[in-house]
Amino acid sequence: MENRESESDARHFAPPGFDVPIPHSPFPIPGSMPYSHLNDYPAEIRERAARVRLACFDVDGTLTDGRLIYDSEGRELKCFHVQDGQGLALLRRFGVAVHFVTARGGLIAAQRAAELGATAHGDVADKLACVGEIAAGLGLTLDQVAFMGDDLADLRVLPHVGLSVAPANAHPWVRERVHWRTVARGGEGAARELCDLLLGAQGHAEQALAGALG
Amino acid sequence: MENRESESDARHFAPPGFDVPIPHSPFPIPGSMPYSHLNDYPAEIRERAARVRLACFDVDGTLTDGRLIYDSEGRELKCFHVQDGQGLALLRRFGVAVHFVTARGGLIAAQRAAELGATAHGDVADKLACVGEIAAGLGLTLDQVAFMGDDLADLRVLPHVGLSVAPANAHPWVRERVHWRTVARGGEGAARELCDLLLGAQGHAEQALAGALG
Amino acid sequence: MENRESESDARHFAPPGFDVPIPHSPFPIPGSMPYSHLNDYPAEIRERAARVRLACFDVDGTLTDGRLIYDSEGRELKCFHVQDGQGLALLRRFGVAVHFVTARGGLIAAQRAAELGATAHGDVADKLACVGEIAAGLGLTLDQVAFMGDDLADLRVLPHVGLSVAPANAHPWVRERVHWRTVARGGEGAARELCDLLLGAQGHAEQALAGALG
Amino acid sequence: MENRESESDARHFAPPGFDVPIPHSPFPIPGSMPYSHLNDYPAEIRERAARVRLACFDVDGTLTDGRLIYDSEGRELKCFHVQDGQGLALLRRFGVAVHFVTARGGLIAAQRAAELGATAHGDVADKLACVGEIAAGLGLTLDQVAFMGDDLADLRVLPHVGLSVAPANAHPWVRERVHWRTVARGGEGAARELCDLLLGAQGHAEQALAGALG
Repeated sequence: MENRESESDARHFAPPGFDVPIPHSPFPIPGSMPYSHLNDYPAEIRERAARVRLACFDVDGTLTDGRLIYDSEGRELKCFHVQDGQGLALLRRFGVAVHFVTARGGLIAAQRAAELGATAHGDVADKLACVGEIAAGLGLTLDQVAFMGDDLADLRVLPHVGLSVAPANAHPWVRERVHWRTVARGGEGAARELCDLLLGAQGHAEQALAGALG
Repeated sequence: MENRESESDARHFAPPGFDVPIPHSPFPIPGSMPYSHLNDYPAEIRERAARVRLACFDVDGTLTDGRLIYDSEGRELKCFHVQDGQGLALLRRFGVAVHFVTARGGLIAAQRAAELGATAHGDVADKLACVGEIAAGLGLTLDQVAFMGDDLADLRVLPHVGLSVAPANAHPWVRERVHWRTVARGGEGAARELCDLLLGAQGHAEQALAGALG
Repeated sequence: MENRESESDARHFAPPGFDVPIPHSPFPIPGSMPYSHLNDYPAEIRERAARVRLACFDVDGTLTDGRLIYDSEGRELKCFHVQDGQGLALLRRFGVAVHFVTARGGLIAAQRAAELGATAHGDVADKLACVGEIAAGLGLTLDQVAFMGDDLADLRVLPHVGLSVAPANAHPWVRERVHWRTVARGGEGAARELCDLLLGAQGHAEQALAGALG
Repeated sequence: MENRESESDARHFAPPGFDVPIPHSPFPIPGSMPYSHLNDYPAEIRERAARVRLACFDVDGTLTDGRLIYDSEGRELKCFHVQDGQGLALLRRFGVAVHFVTARGGLIAAQRAAELGATAHGDVADKLACVGEIAAGLGLTLDQVAFMGDDLADLRVLPHVGLSVAPANAHPWVRERVHWRTVARGGEGAARELCDLLLGAQGHAEQALAGALG
């Protein structure tokens, strides 16, 4: 642990007195001990994560930063994050299904999902019913489902899935009802944190890393 | 209170030494004591909030993050926030009218308002007169009005309404003249904080939560 | 001073332990002592500000947040801030000319300038020459000019104007060569800080406030 | 050093108790000692930087802030930063080739590259092969290449280039495998930090500054 920290410090040349926030590092690899600090997560969370075969994500505030951007000609825009996309692609490669579930119109969500080989469900009035149908269609129980959301429309799902997660910016009502909260905010890497947890808990992280290193 | 904090800590797995800012949590619900910390707000603010039947919001810098985005073909864009929208929808469901009042052109504001079932007033030269007319049209006195704004065009309204609120990013002249200031900045949840305060002070929070939990 | 601080604290209801950054407040008005803390600025800066009849602003990184947004059809977008616009409008009302001077194409800058009654100069290769011509056209000396910029193209101007200012995000080469640096970053209120300084130093702040209060 | 700090303090008029973060200042110039604190960087990094003739940059999360913005008509938008562009232009002026290498579609990247006189490579499946070909085409060895990236697609390149760099927001797997990490995040000046390091280490900073000062 000390080696890792000092190695990190040696590589980060901030001027003296400059307070550099160290971003959350779920899986740093200090020399020969990759993923050792998966142990930093409570055993219960790791066990829940190990069972997940389907990851469902709310869109606005979870996969996006919550901004709803409108232009003067009636268009809408949303801000996703490239690092989340990389994590979602890895999940799919290792056999975890990825679905987006949003109470709003799903046009933009569908565009993002298509790019990642995921499936988007828009205008969803009852997210629990929607998630239940997705799971049933895949022959999975809700215990094998991870769900991540940030606001009231997500509340109904949380008590029923195997692993419920909220981004750092979630509304207090959601924050208090999830198994796990990410350090990152929605649209700024929150989804990637969940992906990294799932990959690590399921033993795929080393293979993912080896594949990336070529 | 201690139980709530320790529960929160247990669920937030930041690496040691990583300073995680705890987002403002106006209404966390620790076990069986929902909304107890509404008591954290001064009695005067709660009393003012309990009387509100009409909530009026400035747009730029209050419902948006203050960014005025222009593209090279003359379009304008504004950034609203999804969590604010959820709060405004709840206000309307519990009988509080929601109006947007902006000194700028109201096209984009009208689009956002329509989506939420609210009403937008654009190109408003005198916000106090506009708010007064809205209130009168609803048979309300200004004591039953909450107004939230961030800059000079909002100043005239502040002394006359029952509850005046500024987002964290408000200009100093506004900051010093309101009953209450939110922790969040405009377009990042400031309006939602006011919605949560109103719902809590009016006794609707439990019902809103119960509805969301299904 | 103590009264103002304690008044502020009483109105800001952050949960205990929540570290709320207090935004820069150049001209808070504690009861009957408006603008008294203009005295917080060194006498030299106030004297320089009092002489300014022309305020020139770089655009990207100064009036905007520095983001250059491109879309997949070749459009460009820039992010200005509504509070800066309010300040620039006040400057003009009190007789200070406002010009934008950018080395990039000026289309979007011109759109923003037109909205504020300011003038935009685009594709400017030599900003010092441009500012000199604007000043001469107004019958002003460079000692009566304030210039705000954040990067190398602005460097040449700084030693020649009466008041040189950099936003918080300016490049180090610029930061070290200005009379004054704002607390806010470009596109997040930096220009407004300069406007407030000029209005205060020229004795217009009370009138501006009175006008806004109606 | 003390003189520089106190000079900075005198020019930065934050209210007492207001914690102003001092942005990273790689090359502040205190009076007559320009670039003296290039010495703050370890000798190994300066030596690696001195050899670089080709600088390759990942796009999303490195030259941009990682946001992938989609609109409701299928367009995509990306956010670059004006200060990065200034640095890349300086690199080219002093004979360092600049290439963008992205695994995503390169349309927007190409637009930004064209503006800066750089070259963009899109839909790159193997970044190491791509960088190798660019270097070979310029008659350079990989020891003369700097590469900056933030995620898995960049990992393969890192061990092979003379100077590998990650922005502050890089994924942990990348963070732990680079020679140097910037203080700024991607799209917020990270690329400019690398440009400044290269210019300083290659002895061009004084000339660049002199050119800007006219």
